[in-house]
Amino acid sequence: MSEDVNTQHAEAMRALKAERDALMETKTLEKGLLLVHTGDGKGKSSAGFGMVARSLGWGMQVGVVQFIKGKWKTGERLFFSRFPDQVRYRVMGEGFTWDTQDRERDIAAARAAWEESKAMIADPTLDFVLLDEINIALRYDYLDIDEVVEVLKARPNDKHVCLTGRNAKPQLLEIADLVTEMTLVKHPFEQGFKAQRGVEF
Amino acid sequence: MSEDVNTQHAEAMRALKAERDALMETKTLEKGLLLVHTGDGKGKSSAGFGMVARSLGWGMQVGVVQFIKGKWKTGERLFFSRFPDQVRYRVMGEGFTWDTQDRERDIAAARAAWEESKAMIADPTLDFVLLDEINIALRYDYLDIDEVVEVLKARPNDKHVCLTGRNAKPQLLEIADLVTEMTLVKHPFEQGFKAQRGVEF
Repeated sequence: MSEDVNTQHAEAMRALKAERDALMETKTLEKGLLLVHTGDGKGKSSAGFGMVARSLGWGMQVGVVQFIKGKWKTGERLFFSRFPDQVRYRVMGEGFTWDTQDRERDIAAARAAWEESKAMIADPTLDFVLLDEINIALRYDYLDIDEVVEVLKARPNDKHVCLTGRNAKPQLLEIADLVTEMTLVKHPFEQGFKAQRGVEF
Repeated sequence: MSEDVNTQHAEAMRALKAERDALMETKTLEKGLLLVHTGDGKGKSSAGFGMVARSLGWGMQVGVVQFIKGKWKTGERLFFSRFPDQVRYRVMGEGFTWDTQDRERDIAAARAAWEESKAMIADPTLDFVLLDEINIALRYDYLDIDEVVEVLKARPNDKHVCLTGRNAKPQLLEIADLVTEMTLVKHPFEQGFKAQRGVEF
């Protein structure tokens, strides 16, 4: 590799770093963020659980409510239940709605999960709260979106809350600080693969 | 709520479940998946670390190579380093390229990380390998994409490998089983917020 390429590279990187440093100086605010992971691609819940892991690494206290997974045995529950001193983990759903086939029961389960969520959102000892698949419950109008928005807006100033699930309501996107849409580009189901441990659950 | 609504709901859900069960019967294949998280949105690495947590929950053995984070203290490293019996964790980068400003050193670091990755991909005792931000090293051509493709294609049949980072090479998308594009809808940087513990690192 010629010396020129390396010199040019160093110059370009110095310019990039100067630009980035200047940008970073404008980023001075810190507060609890409201994050939404939506879209029809994979990774919405996984990214939420990755944030749980990061938070635990920093010694934070975390709350998790799973709205849909029900009595399923999942890798995330098996793992994070190992840390009861740092993680308050609640699985409130009774399974997917097409499994229960009982609307009244689904509504009761969703509302019980929401009661638990409200307590976690208000609890000043929790730094981060993950409401996994709450968007599904909102989509079916099992929860009142106006109440959810109101509770989220009234959360303690330094609390991060992450909401996952496809078809996020526009009212949520409106108040969110960070919204990521996970877009499906290629999915193994298309090729006949089963959902697999570690990857899908 | 009238009885009718609930009866209709139960019928609709029975139909949905029948449809889903029929679909699931066609999904019979199991093999190690090649997953790519790309795009300019958040959650690419987080979703990879969520899969690490899930895998650990199932008692799997996991390998992680971080190509870019360098000597940064991150929540993910602080956390997953707690489980040396289940996680082989290597941070090989020396920081972002605009920090080092030294192309030769970046290339050497990327190649050392790739050597470690190759060993993990070939190691039959590891069930899941996360190559975090490898796409950045590939984008700068610090690694040879043809060699990376060849090594990934030759991996043990039951091994899951996840590659993250924006600007994934088309050759990778071509051989991947699952590709998710994380799309930025709204980012707190736009509003002046700093990168924060637990959320960004």
